Amino acid sequence: MTGEITLKQRLDNLFNPRSVALIGASGTFGKWGFNILTLLLSDKGRDIYAVNNKEAEVLGLKAYRSILDVPAPVDLAVITVPFQYVPAAMEDCIQKKVKGVVVISGGLAETGEEGAKVQAQIVEVAKRGGIRFTGPNCMGLFDTSSNFNIVIFLPPLRKGPVGLISQSGNSGQSIIISGLEDGLGFSKYVSSGNEADLHYEDYLEYIAQDEETKVILGYIEGLREGRRFFELAKAITKEKPIVVVKAGRTQAGASAARSHTAALAGADVVSDAAFKQAGVIRVDEVDELIDVALLLLGQPLPRGRRVGVLSIGGGMAVMTADIVEKQGLEMASLSPATIEKLDSVLSRRWSHRNPVDMGGDRFNYSCLWPLIEDDNIDAILVIGSPAATRSFIEWFSLHAPWVTNIDEMRKLMEKKDLVELNRVKEMMCKYGKPVIFCSMGVRIVKQGEVYKWMERNYLIPYHTPERAAKALSHLVAYSEYLGVSK
Amino acid sequence: MTGEITLKQRLDNLFNPRSVALIGASGTFGKWGFNILTLLLSDKGRDIYAVNNKEAEVLGLKAYRSILDVPAPVDLAVITVPFQYVPAAMEDCIQKKVKGVVVISGGLAETGEEGAKVQAQIVEVAKRGGIRFTGPNCMGLFDTSSNFNIVIFLPPLRKGPVGLISQSGNSGQSIIISGLEDGLGFSKYVSSGNEADLHYEDYLEYIAQDEETKVILGYIEGLREGRRFFELAKAITKEKPIVVVKAGRTQAGASAARSHTAALAGADVVSDAAFKQAGVIRVDEVDELIDVALLLLGQPLPRGRRVGVLSIGGGMAVMTADIVEKQGLEMASLSPATIEKLDSVLSRRWSHRNPVDMGGDRFNYSCLWPLIEDDNIDAILVIGSPAATRSFIEWFSLHAPWVTNIDEMRKLMEKKDLVELNRVKEMMCKYGKPVIFCSMGVRIVKQGEVYKWMERNYLIPYHTPERAAKALSHLVAYSEYLGVSK
Repeated sequence: MTGEITLKQRLDNLFNPRSVALIGASGTFGKWGFNILTLLLSDKGRDIYAVNNKEAEVLGLKAYRSILDVPAPVDLAVITVPFQYVPAAMEDCIQKKVKGVVVISGGLAETGEEGAKVQAQIVEVAKRGGIRFTGPNCMGLFDTSSNFNIVIFLPPLRKGPVGLISQSGNSGQSIIISGLEDGLGFSKYVSSGNEADLHYEDYLEYIAQDEETKVILGYIEGLREGRRFFELAKAITKEKPIVVVKAGRTQAGASAARSHTAALAGADVVSDAAFKQAGVIRVDEVDELIDVALLLLGQPLPRGRRVGVLSIGGGMAVMTADIVEKQGLEMASLSPATIEKLDSVLSRRWSHRNPVDMGGDRFNYSCLWPLIEDDNIDAILVIGSPAATRSFIEWFSLHAPWVTNIDEMRKLMEKKDLVELNRVKEMMCKYGKPVIFCSMGVRIVKQGEVYKWMERNYLIPYHTPERAAKALSHLVAYSEYLGVSK
Repeated sequence: MTGEITLKQRLDNLFNPRSVALIGASGTFGKWGFNILTLLLSDKGRDIYAVNNKEAEVLGLKAYRSILDVPAPVDLAVITVPFQYVPAAMEDCIQKKVKGVVVISGGLAETGEEGAKVQAQIVEVAKRGGIRFTGPNCMGLFDTSSNFNIVIFLPPLRKGPVGLISQSGNSGQSIIISGLEDGLGFSKYVSSGNEADLHYEDYLEYIAQDEETKVILGYIEGLREGRRFFELAKAITKEKPIVVVKAGRTQAGASAARSHTAALAGADVVSDAAFKQAGVIRVDEVDELIDVALLLLGQPLPRGRRVGVLSIGGGMAVMTADIVEKQGLEMASLSPATIEKLDSVLSRRWSHRNPVDMGGDRFNYSCLWPLIEDDNIDAILVIGSPAATRSFIEWFSLHAPWVTNIDEMRKLMEKKDLVELNRVKEMMCKYGKPVIFCSMGVRIVKQGEVYKWMERNYLIPYHTPERAAKALSHLVAYSEYLGVSK
């Protein structure tokens, strides 16, 4: 009978249960059972049941001694009790005929032999009962489509096209928090933990089918089914890009991974070469993951690696030229037509070459169009972004408060910025060329229509040219993989 | 007679003039002459004169047709007129017997032959008149001791131990703005521009003598007196560290530098090896410069490269182990005594090795003391910082508003944090071991006593372990250079 249920149905029960029981619900501030219950209490669309074998009531909710006492069907059980009690809790879940389980509890295979034994018991009980589960040693999951969330300590979520599967709960937190700050929205997330039952590959297969998800991010320490991952990824990356941090690259990292999620990084690990063959974009850290995701969502795929740099100032232009080459990209040569066009726009002080240093003038959009039109250029880095306008206006408000029409000027400048940015987007698409903005250290004020426009279009300025160029080099490699770039 | 004036006296006139004339003062919003005058108008300690050959009044200030019409002595002239008028302005300055000049105007040697000719003229006039000047093609300078500032578009300055010499005005802005955001304070800054007269080496010699300055940062495209720089740096770095971005590392960057500040990056450039020999710390970008400065100010010099990692979560621990090795540092082996001590503090779930994964518990200071005391460890990276407390409290305020004593708890936690942080500082100094905090993606709330303490002690959490480890590797190299580390 269990054979008839598809993986999708199985996982739908985890990501969109109608009723949830929390085994280990607690009234003690700061405990997992307290924190998760706190979240569940605000879930108005589901029936929530607290299970606690000592209290009659937890956080104002009636508490049941066992999940078996719950007087209605339970779709999903979330387990937070100490490790040694998990097998018994799992037994109860089977008797209760729950449809899915998330085991938050840690202290299992990742801690050594004793924990591994208990973990094996849990797996055995679940298998016998035909139940699939997430974890143990994980931080839960969320789904913004179904409005289900048991992941604590996150800022308010934003719906969006990014799916995330992380073998580490805290790395997952990092990725989500950083992503939200940079304007990303998420579809589904799971912290997969020790993957005693459901594997990374199961979630990947599931999330790849999700309509909302356009980009899949991941944090991996070790894969249980390397071959399956490879085959899945190869098919998925033709439609949806996959970007992963694969930790445990060094000897020290690999050993650490073993005692973290019991992952055997050295065993059936999908190697760097395999990632490449499957079109998976591999990065080194959290920020890079976000940076690449933003490019994948906001930019067309480049047709090559020749970069034009347009800068509001010379020093940043020089540094950026260095960085472009360091990242394995090429500084493009401007075509004579482009030089002629720029001559008609800029004062004689401009650099007359790539990087295009506008020579201390304010950011001038008219310099951007010739670069986008230039056949010698595949992608453009812009140093000095429109979203900086607000910082300049703030400066004038502080130092020249007697200039009375500053607010009016700001509005005019922002209005112009919006018109020009829409044109940037149009040109980017028309010519199939990424245009990537970088702040030149100017603090970006995350307010106003211009910033909102940039955020909505995944075009918010990168904090540094280094981060932008690194992300672009990944985009170029992916583009080459797909055959868009020669 | 000019021979009797020391370099220090010369430059004191630039950094602390009693009276200033702005040649090119303007009432037109957004012009250099407008922006700088805006700043000068708020300088209550100095006599300010506006020079404009067309207007009788600028921004409410009487304007003089020429600096020669100013009815009092002028210490410093700041020139913002178009490039072709600079030689004449310089002539006037000499007749007026000003003591120093800053030439903001660009369009000179950096733009080609015509500009180079005019620049040569300016130099000739100045030399004949025995006047020294900063620039041209620069963004000015400031001195927080003398409260003198002509650098536009900066946030409010903070006094502090960081001196900065930048051949690029906009890179200088980046460094200052990023530095201020991360809690650095500045002593003196100069944007040296084309260095037609005063060279990088002059400023270096001057700022090294400054009592307020403890760390010297720099942005360099090309040095005019490489040998002199080397000799100066070699002497200075024994007392005060020098950290520089040397741009123009690649072919593309070097060419770009030429058309930016007319710097011949390839010619008398001080090479990587020479920087090393002189004990100069060379970094690649702005953020790295700030990161290293923070370590130099806040940390003792490490005695080796063996790193202990203490993490609130396993995934970040694994990534950090990778990063430590990637940066050429070593993951330390914990001594048996340390493992024993940690066993008594942590639940059985901890990793029992370096990286020390505390196993999902809240950050526990008691884990830090054994690591600091361990002879096998030279420096410690802490992933998950005390300053994150506020984020957690914010989460509870949002999701569990019915917990009424949250504010009290926050106060208690912060009070404990402060006690423990003071102990961290004490232990760091006693054992001569850096303890570096990194956020694990948790947004750092820049408020509250804990953050203020961390900022005051240059211990604010690094945004990523990568940035922390990279900066630490520079600190280790400097420590080796000085013979502190073997």
